[in-house]
Amino acid sequence: MPIDDPVALRLSGERLAAVYRIQAADEAAALARARDICLEQTVEFPAALIPNAAIRDQIVGAVDALAAVGAGAWDATIRYPVEAAGGELTQLVNLLFGNVALQPGVRLMDFHLPKAMLTDIRGPRFGIGGLRRLLAVHDRPLLCTALKPMGLSPQALAGLAYELALGGIDLIKDDHGLADQPFCPFHERVPRCAEAVQRANRETGRHAVYLPNVTAPAHLVQSRAFAARDAGAGGLLFCPGLAGLDTMRMLTDDDGLGLPVLSHPAFIGGLAVSPTAGLSHAVLYGRLNRLAGADAAIFPHHGGRFSYAEAECRDIVAGCTDAIGALAPIFPVPAGGMQLARVPELRAYYGRDCILLIGGDLHAGDEGLVARARRFVTLASEDG
Amino acid sequence: MPIDDPVALRLSGERLAAVYRIQAADEAAALARARDICLEQTVEFPAALIPNAAIRDQIVGAVDALAAVGAGAWDATIRYPVEAAGGELTQLVNLLFGNVALQPGVRLMDFHLPKAMLTDIRGPRFGIGGLRRLLAVHDRPLLCTALKPMGLSPQALAGLAYELALGGIDLIKDDHGLADQPFCPFHERVPRCAEAVQRANRETGRHAVYLPNVTAPAHLVQSRAFAARDAGAGGLLFCPGLAGLDTMRMLTDDDGLGLPVLSHPAFIGGLAVSPTAGLSHAVLYGRLNRLAGADAAIFPHHGGRFSYAEAECRDIVAGCTDAIGALAPIFPVPAGGMQLARVPELRAYYGRDCILLIGGDLHAGDEGLVARARRFVTLASEDG
Repeated sequence: MPIDDPVALRLSGERLAAVYRIQAADEAAALARARDICLEQTVEFPAALIPNAAIRDQIVGAVDALAAVGAGAWDATIRYPVEAAGGELTQLVNLLFGNVALQPGVRLMDFHLPKAMLTDIRGPRFGIGGLRRLLAVHDRPLLCTALKPMGLSPQALAGLAYELALGGIDLIKDDHGLADQPFCPFHERVPRCAEAVQRANRETGRHAVYLPNVTAPAHLVQSRAFAARDAGAGGLLFCPGLAGLDTMRMLTDDDGLGLPVLSHPAFIGGLAVSPTAGLSHAVLYGRLNRLAGADAAIFPHHGGRFSYAEAECRDIVAGCTDAIGALAPIFPVPAGGMQLARVPELRAYYGRDCILLIGGDLHAGDEGLVARARRFVTLASEDG
Repeated sequence: MPIDDPVALRLSGERLAAVYRIQAADEAAALARARDICLEQTVEFPAALIPNAAIRDQIVGAVDALAAVGAGAWDATIRYPVEAAGGELTQLVNLLFGNVALQPGVRLMDFHLPKAMLTDIRGPRFGIGGLRRLLAVHDRPLLCTALKPMGLSPQALAGLAYELALGGIDLIKDDHGLADQPFCPFHERVPRCAEAVQRANRETGRHAVYLPNVTAPAHLVQSRAFAARDAGAGGLLFCPGLAGLDTMRMLTDDDGLGLPVLSHPAFIGGLAVSPTAGLSHAVLYGRLNRLAGADAAIFPHHGGRFSYAEAECRDIVAGCTDAIGALAPIFPVPAGGMQLARVPELRAYYGRDCILLIGGDLHAGDEGLVARARRFVTLASEDG
């Protein structure tokens, strides 16, 4: 039975575009799948039952192009009305990939937002340029480490933070497993570590920052972020997969907070694991983080404890740095079991505009944390 | 260099357990992988560098069992200290699966929390029993539908809501793609649809509820939820994958709100797609939703527009209903392109304690929405 609507639908006609990689037996099957996605991501309604031409023409996605990209795979470009995203990141992600995330054989490779949408999105507050200015480091990759292992007291972690800042590390973050555990409460850890880094800065004249982990229960995220700032933290660590992508956006949009945010892929990174489903590395690490305002995106560099291929890491760099309207480019942060011995290789691979993150390996050997941090700075500063 | 800690670590010794399915060449490789997970999910530190015996013994995960479960696969049970979860759902998920989510060949199959942890978790406020009492329906599956397609005005959607409630549908939810679009603003849609369902209830004497979608930007979730309640909505729809699992927990924990919540798997459902990575269906749909307080979990039933196997649907039912401390069992909600013709089969498969969700198919044919909704009730009420 047709559904009557007393109100005529009149959209602007502006569209955003998404590119999906579809696994299919042949081109006809790929096209049929692309057309299913057009319905699935918008009306979720059988095509034959769509109540009027306005919805069919203005709301339902439209296949714009279909290109073979190797054996059994096609890239379908689908255009959606900008109004369907409703000006909200939560609904934009839903429009791009909400339901098709549950289907194998389709992967969101990329998306493009028209200018009209991008002007409403602030994006990274600092980005590559802003973070360099904040840290006053312009001639080499930025250097990052994590306070760990879990189980150390706030006192012990603050001791490490001091030595790491003294040794020249720029960004000293909480390990992302440090939350508000009874053996290391947030409100004890954060002031101690922030103070330790500031003390080291007074000695070195440098501008290292401490970034506590504010991944927290929903009702506590903002209060922890402001407590961190008030305690002297120079940035924040956040896991959008654990506490919400738009929660990160809320933090980065907050003019009263005004801190750089480092994004960690815990949990959500699982959506990039299958090459034939989920999200491309560029979308997951680059585009979504930038839309949500992160200034740097941590990811597992190939050859560490994780399995990403070299090409996937390249893809992440592109997603972090290519042009998206006026959104600032952000730092790729290769990590995941990196070692000092690999710094020359990392520097050659990523060039100057990356953040190198080394955790456990700074504690190896007998030279001591300060000396080893200094060696990290030296290695990263040398021309590759 | 050893790290000194002036504070001795003294944990309770209570542990939670997680079961991971590991793909490996042989048992030795599976065990090595399990031991890597023990480190990865806690200290993220090379075993040899762990600074003291207290951290090694009390913080690092411990492999409790390793069982072959078919060709090339082992189930490893790993125990973690309860204190590592810090009493927060965000950190519990991180502890269980934060970093290993990024690795292929390992899937979180299940987890078990000791009583001490469960007493701090409220879980579902209504669950199966509470939702049945609220709707006063005890002798058949509950029936649910979605207001759609996107593109209809609030007026048209309210008209549908009225007819669907008149026809006997128990739960009338927004399609999860309805957010706050300019063609269907939240603050116009919600009062109209809530009023329409209440008007139908006055005519039928029944207790149907309208569940608007409050998946929203982080700073707006609570205000939309309360606006929905104030407008007369009897429940809420929420997508934890889009707006945060713990954000759902915040809503369900709120005594001032007190509404049942239906959880939709948009985006996050992608973590169950690969059989050798991600989360099991029982964990993703059942356990995590219950810990976050949802009263019902929507999932794609096999044979619809999605690809879940029959066994996976069975697994979801188990995750929704098996014993977890005092947490209420919740309704499984098979969905995703279900049709009236399949109701007898669904009823036979799921029994009485499920919510059947049919969307587009209620609009098919010539009999009209009210008549077709009535037929849905009749089909669901018959003994299979």
